[in-house]
Amino acid sequence: MRAARFYAAGDIRIEDVDPPQASEDKVLVEIEWCGICGTDLNEYLNGPYVIPNEKRGPHHLTGEMLPITMGHEFSGRVVRAPSTSSLVPGQPVVADPRFYCSSCTACTKPATNVCKYFGFLGLSGRGGGLSELVAVNPEMLYPLPDNVDLAAAALIEPLAVAWHAIRRSGIQDFKDIPILVIGAGPVGVSTVFALKAEGANMIIVSETAASRREFLADVVYDALDPTKVDVGSKCRELTCGDGVGIVFDCAGVQTGFEAGCDSLRVHGIYVNLAIPKAPARLPFEHFIPKELTFKTFLAYDDIDFKEVVAAFSAGRFEGVERMITRRVPLEDIVDKGFKELTQNLGDHIKIMATPKKSNK
Amino acid sequence: MRAARFYAAGDIRIEDVDPPQASEDKVLVEIEWCGICGTDLNEYLNGPYVIPNEKRGPHHLTGEMLPITMGHEFSGRVVRAPSTSSLVPGQPVVADPRFYCSSCTACTKPATNVCKYFGFLGLSGRGGGLSELVAVNPEMLYPLPDNVDLAAAALIEPLAVAWHAIRRSGIQDFKDIPILVIGAGPVGVSTVFALKAEGANMIIVSETAASRREFLADVVYDALDPTKVDVGSKCRELTCGDGVGIVFDCAGVQTGFEAGCDSLRVHGIYVNLAIPKAPARLPFEHFIPKELTFKTFLAYDDIDFKEVVAAFSAGRFEGVERMITRRVPLEDIVDKGFKELTQNLGDHIKIMATPKKSNK
Repeated sequence: MRAARFYAAGDIRIEDVDPPQASEDKVLVEIEWCGICGTDLNEYLNGPYVIPNEKRGPHHLTGEMLPITMGHEFSGRVVRAPSTSSLVPGQPVVADPRFYCSSCTACTKPATNVCKYFGFLGLSGRGGGLSELVAVNPEMLYPLPDNVDLAAAALIEPLAVAWHAIRRSGIQDFKDIPILVIGAGPVGVSTVFALKAEGANMIIVSETAASRREFLADVVYDALDPTKVDVGSKCRELTCGDGVGIVFDCAGVQTGFEAGCDSLRVHGIYVNLAIPKAPARLPFEHFIPKELTFKTFLAYDDIDFKEVVAAFSAGRFEGVERMITRRVPLEDIVDKGFKELTQNLGDHIKIMATPKKSNK
Repeated sequence: MRAARFYAAGDIRIEDVDPPQASEDKVLVEIEWCGICGTDLNEYLNGPYVIPNEKRGPHHLTGEMLPITMGHEFSGRVVRAPSTSSLVPGQPVVADPRFYCSSCTACTKPATNVCKYFGFLGLSGRGGGLSELVAVNPEMLYPLPDNVDLAAAALIEPLAVAWHAIRRSGIQDFKDIPILVIGAGPVGVSTVFALKAEGANMIIVSETAASRREFLADVVYDALDPTKVDVGSKCRELTCGDGVGIVFDCAGVQTGFEAGCDSLRVHGIYVNLAIPKAPARLPFEHFIPKELTFKTFLAYDDIDFKEVVAAFSAGRFEGVERMITRRVPLEDIVDKGFKELTQNLGDHIKIMATPKKSNK
């Protein structure tokens, strides 16, 4: 079968590989759509980072290292399921692509998202979504309604990232809290949709790219250009002088960090979903006098994924399919996917690839 | 009356000033003991910082600026009380030395400790504890038992700082949580005593000064020298490999910040009580994979002070008077207090001064 495999930074190859073997403990899934994630792009530009390589050795749970088939945000249809599974051929599904060890301190908390040996289909071995077929543990597959838009369903994974941060922020009710989301890339936009699904009414977004601000114009309360507006002052102006109650940082840059802290009101919460590219200075000048709280989050756990599938199936992410800014055949994923994101990042939220000719 | 007044860095003078006037809305208090705080020392070394001065103008609530009578950690006895007050002459008391405006966003939350215009007796005007007499609002004075040790009672204010951070950390029960306290100066030791009063069983302290480690040797589970021991490894070793659940940073230095984050287990909480002297780099390498939380706290509010007075009066801070490493007459506060702390900081926890000859 055809698969996009990572060899090195700038070197992803579409090539023929052996398809996964049928087995009694895995479900064979035919991929419909698979998104390119920021992590994938980072691997392409600067990797191998998460992808196991000769320097760090094979992945603890898969025993594999590069070349690795990529793609962890995918939907598909069941081809063949173990006899013990209730899944039937043709069933639309989405996969929680994680591996975890189930025995480390984190897993037994349980906090499987920060498992000591965590890995992902599409980054750590055992195949991935940027191919034709993948074999998945039955308990990691979630059935979807028959009439589902399977391209939109491939957004469930990035929505789960946002869902996790929202769920574990400590906030129970988002209806009456003014919120600032910094960065409107895939994680930022997923956060906006997840917050709206959770009832948030006042979401302010700070984003440098005009196209991304326009994309969110009718979804959020206000979309600010931080190169033109003092974000802290504007947030206070929009909130009777108080500032926002919570910030979701989906950008990971120092200027955003400082503006976000400046925007928070007394006892505000700063939630980080980004992997900062440079060392971050902690702005104590905002933290101490306002007694702020800073929280970091990584990936998602079983509860998050289950809740997002349920919310997605119930139609609570209205309009989320608009996140898909381009659809490309798997064969074109390098030129029309990775290279396009490298050159024109601000024009896109999510690029989806399909190995199926009928989807093109 | 005699009073220690701040004029400039390195310039605190003991001089004669007018005593506070009797009035129907204030209680006149004769000072028994007053501690030197880290903030006071910082003013002496590098100030004026908190103390209002010509550059920043007079304090919003007192209208005063330097020279300012110092001392905000004090106990005393009532000399004269308004007719509406239940306080009687001779009554031992401790003062919550704060001013707040009662009308800003923080005050109405209520979070009076982060009032926009907060100030302190002894730093912001209206007199202070490093003098013979001070006039205090009746609602800020707390009566103490008749047989109280009034030198120990002057420790209630620093204990309230620790109490606030502990109370608002989000942790309900400290009995089964391994805890790391970084820095065993006055704030660190206050934190240890406050944690013990709250039932903590496993407190590990990291402190560079041998004398301070020895001081705490029979109070804490272990006292580590961070120049000799890898604090993160040692904390994991002492906690079956997991790490501590919460860190209280009472030092505010980068090496401590990083070691503290390294010491935390998954979902650990980092509580900052320090005012860092240099920009702090946020160690994302610990924060993201363990999903850590960082919280900052400042001063204390009415509830904290009330609870600490009650705990103190009930004898829950057993042995706390050992924090007092030197007692000096007010006249000697510069040479035997501020200069001593400048030269031999590691030899002391708290230096107390008294204006009363009978206490010497």
